[in-house]
Amino acid sequence: MATFIFGHTTPDTDSIIGAISLSYLKNQLGEETIPTRQGEINPETKFILEKFGYKAPELKTSYAGESVYLIDFMERSQSPKDIDEATILGIVDHHKLGDLTTATPLEMWVRPVGCSNTIVKQMFDYYNIEIPKELAGMMMCAILSDTVIFKSPTCTKEDTKACKELAQIAQIEDYKALGMEMFNVKSDVLSATKRELVLRDFKDFNMGGKKVGVGQLEVVDLSVFDNMKDELFSEMKKLKEEGSRDTVLLMLTDIIQEGTQLLVVSDDISKIKEAFGVEIENNQVWLPKVMSRKKQIIPFLEKVF
Amino acid sequence: MATFIFGHTTPDTDSIIGAISLSYLKNQLGEETIPTRQGEINPETKFILEKFGYKAPELKTSYAGESVYLIDFMERSQSPKDIDEATILGIVDHHKLGDLTTATPLEMWVRPVGCSNTIVKQMFDYYNIEIPKELAGMMMCAILSDTVIFKSPTCTKEDTKACKELAQIAQIEDYKALGMEMFNVKSDVLSATKRELVLRDFKDFNMGGKKVGVGQLEVVDLSVFDNMKDELFSEMKKLKEEGSRDTVLLMLTDIIQEGTQLLVVSDDISKIKEAFGVEIENNQVWLPKVMSRKKQIIPFLEKVF
Repeated sequence: MATFIFGHTTPDTDSIIGAISLSYLKNQLGEETIPTRQGEINPETKFILEKFGYKAPELKTSYAGESVYLIDFMERSQSPKDIDEATILGIVDHHKLGDLTTATPLEMWVRPVGCSNTIVKQMFDYYNIEIPKELAGMMMCAILSDTVIFKSPTCTKEDTKACKELAQIAQIEDYKALGMEMFNVKSDVLSATKRELVLRDFKDFNMGGKKVGVGQLEVVDLSVFDNMKDELFSEMKKLKEEGSRDTVLLMLTDIIQEGTQLLVVSDDISKIKEAFGVEIENNQVWLPKVMSRKKQIIPFLEKVF
Repeated sequence: MATFIFGHTTPDTDSIIGAISLSYLKNQLGEETIPTRQGEINPETKFILEKFGYKAPELKTSYAGESVYLIDFMERSQSPKDIDEATILGIVDHHKLGDLTTATPLEMWVRPVGCSNTIVKQMFDYYNIEIPKELAGMMMCAILSDTVIFKSPTCTKEDTKACKELAQIAQIEDYKALGMEMFNVKSDVLSATKRELVLRDFKDFNMGGKKVGVGQLEVVDLSVFDNMKDELFSEMKKLKEEGSRDTVLLMLTDIIQEGTQLLVVSDDISKIKEAFGVEIENNQVWLPKVMSRKKQIIPFLEKVF
């Protein structure tokens, strides 16, 4: 019986490409695996899949009775609802140690790097398995996406090294130009509904028993949001009510200016002020240099929650 | 500031030698680390340390404000009490995914193999760092101990491979003889108090909100326990009360006969019967072929709790 490999709910590029790349590696190692996804493909990922001629993994949201590998997450709140009825054989991830547990020993490749595909690249090297040219191109794009073309504070030497080696395999010389092309696709926020925007890269966390959702949109120019903030706030409020969340945050990240306009909807806004040591006016605040949810937002929320 | 590296409470050989071997590796990689331990050294570990001329790591039970690496565990119930006030930089382990969590990304080397030192050996290989002869001997002994000289169902090809390579580095030809010598030391249960015996290799687990403690004693001949079972039961009952445990189990494992006499003290003995599909008479039962707590006991308890 095949083993399924998938990333978190509301998959981003790293989750989708990671499921494909890890599945390819595992199959080469003699396991029978199938990459799947828990949700819709975002525009950036669609652009990458089309560019390199790959199909999106199949949508699958239930895994009871199955064996699975998880990529790019280990939080219960980002898992399928029936994850407890699945057998987790392994996890490849670059986030904090989450609240998933297992009944049996497993395999975990977890590193404090900028992208799960950097770890998958290291696994290919460890097992001495060749990466097909087009797959290498997609993995390279995942690293450029997760590290915001190396600008994110989460980016490590291991990420740039893996990215450059993948670019070589993919025979792509100007990989930074491709990265910018990708972020231009990502910056197209006008053709989506406001709900789609808030949910495009949205993750829930369990913080001291409270549900906290944090979305992020990365664009090359923040002014695209100028006339839609009221509508974004209104969607955030709806999400907060529907999901019984304590707090919903939306990071509007400007990858050129290198900073984040944080939109806040919360039962207790004083906690958010405390977390970042800032004043919050009209439910928003500019956080200079902040580009990473997992490194510059989540740990500070964890402290106050 | 140095980072501390330590194994679980009531440390076994893998926990102690793993702290030493991982610390040596990390120091070679340019980090400043110190191996420590959470509890007393058992007779087997003492024998190994003396044989290879190493000192025991320092006893240290509080880690608030410190950075740490964990080896051979990732369960809250096996952690120092103030683990939440420490920063976990990484985990090297071969058990199930436990209930520890972190606020920040970390490094995890977790494999479903028989021994943590097998993983540390693979890390030495990955980083291309040479292992000193005496350290290799100790790591080899840890693998022989955890895999019961390759007899445990937890033993994998990776364990035997690592063990043989370590034996070569240590220049020890008859490593199985050394293994038996080690188990003879381990089998000396007459010079210890009954409480020391029950606690010698004892681990607590959180199972569905209930505290379940499972100890294990591995000997070359089960008859050494013939005249002390009443006293062992009496200590198990005391431990159950003192620690507000739901259940205390003691595995008396015969490594020659390859099976375990399981002693049971529980609020609900029917659960234990159900877990293993056996009748339990006089609070004990012989489980043929059962040698591994983590693979043949814990997963079945998890299912019923």
